Amino acid sequence: MSSKRAVVLVSGGLDSATTLAVARRDGYECLAMTFRYGQRHDAEIEASRRVCEGKVLEHRIVQIDLASFGASALTADIPVPKAGDTPSEEFSEIPITYVPARNTIFLSYALAWAEVSDVFDVFIGVNSVDYSGYPDCRPEYIEAFERMANLATRAGVQGRGLTVHTPLGELSKAQIIGLGTSLGVDYSLTVTCYDPANGEACGVCDACLLRLEGFRNAGLSDPVCYSSAL
Amino acid sequence: MSSKRAVVLVSGGLDSATTLAVARRDGYECLAMTFRYGQRHDAEIEASRRVCEGKVLEHRIVQIDLASFGASALTADIPVPKAGDTPSEEFSEIPITYVPARNTIFLSYALAWAEVSDVFDVFIGVNSVDYSGYPDCRPEYIEAFERMANLATRAGVQGRGLTVHTPLGELSKAQIIGLGTSLGVDYSLTVTCYDPANGEACGVCDACLLRLEGFRNAGLSDPVCYSSAL
Repeated sequence: MSSKRAVVLVSGGLDSATTLAVARRDGYECLAMTFRYGQRHDAEIEASRRVCEGKVLEHRIVQIDLASFGASALTADIPVPKAGDTPSEEFSEIPITYVPARNTIFLSYALAWAEVSDVFDVFIGVNSVDYSGYPDCRPEYIEAFERMANLATRAGVQGRGLTVHTPLGELSKAQIIGLGTSLGVDYSLTVTCYDPANGEACGVCDACLLRLEGFRNAGLSDPVCYSSAL
Repeated sequence: MSSKRAVVLVSGGLDSATTLAVARRDGYECLAMTFRYGQRHDAEIEASRRVCEGKVLEHRIVQIDLASFGASALTADIPVPKAGDTPSEEFSEIPITYVPARNTIFLSYALAWAEVSDVFDVFIGVNSVDYSGYPDCRPEYIEAFERMANLATRAGVQGRGLTVHTPLGELSKAQIIGLGTSLGVDYSLTVTCYDPANGEACGVCDACLLRLEGFRNAGLSDPVCYSSAL
């Protein structure tokens, strides 16, 4: 049987590590793609390397120029919100850590790599936990991207469609952690914190709180080190 | 009256110079965006600077990492086809100069810049001359991108949609040149050739032939210098 391959977006976080494990469980040989996009720290790039090591055919780290657009605490010089902070009123329904058009740019690069590699499957770890805040994590967005991609490419013109897989789809953070644990994901390799220091997660940013709550709800303990006792 | 603004994709070629002129005619103050994507020469980047000079609010040149995906004569080390060459059989319906997912990546960056700038209009110079060969130049592709973009962004969620303008839409090359000339475009500033040398266009690549034919059909003479007499 000839092998099937997929491009998998791997950020170095918990969700994408789980997504990679699902793609491998489903029999895909994986081409992993990670983006360096002006993050204020490189901890997640290093995490992506650890997560991919020995598990993928190839791992490409693509430098992209998102930081020049500003407008996000993840790339610009705006303080990361901590638990208890009053949210900014202007964009109170969308997190300040939102990066404009991020998933569209990421998926576009994945589409390019898939096309030149004769690959027709892309995996991305968006999930329901993100839906409320990030417009480009919703199922209707993913479907619209897929439809656009199939009009954009040589493969689409030739009738071979691209499928964007979102295996974490409707899962809660606890369910994601349970799934990954059942697939042998080593979550100690991942980085979730928006603001890590000295190899330790802060334990108080929104991302850390969501992760810690997920492990608690899954009845599991988080193997990463936290600098704040909670 | 408050000014209206648009992001305009400017490559330094004839089509995008005309597109910029149309956007300005229609009253937009323009944010110009050019991509450096592993082209084998920088002549078109320089052309984009000349085309934008004095005509835009801001001109951003974004470095993108397309070359690492290969698969195109414009970025990889494959000879550029000349007139009379037998086309490669494998992809005979799509030009070898096709760059995978190029317009999707370009429009995604434009979307990001538009979103952080509170801009809701993007101009791109795709046109009917390209439709036959490049899947991501067709109207149905542009419509699908627009639909996806409006599900991707904060602005879309808030009901303020993005419009992707393709003012060259159904125009022939001669009609584009006629339109631009009527708007005062200085085509001597533009670069079209796939393979220029010493500031001169080759005059024999597909792009040069299409351009020269366009000027001929428009009853105008092309102000750029050609190294080959035809």
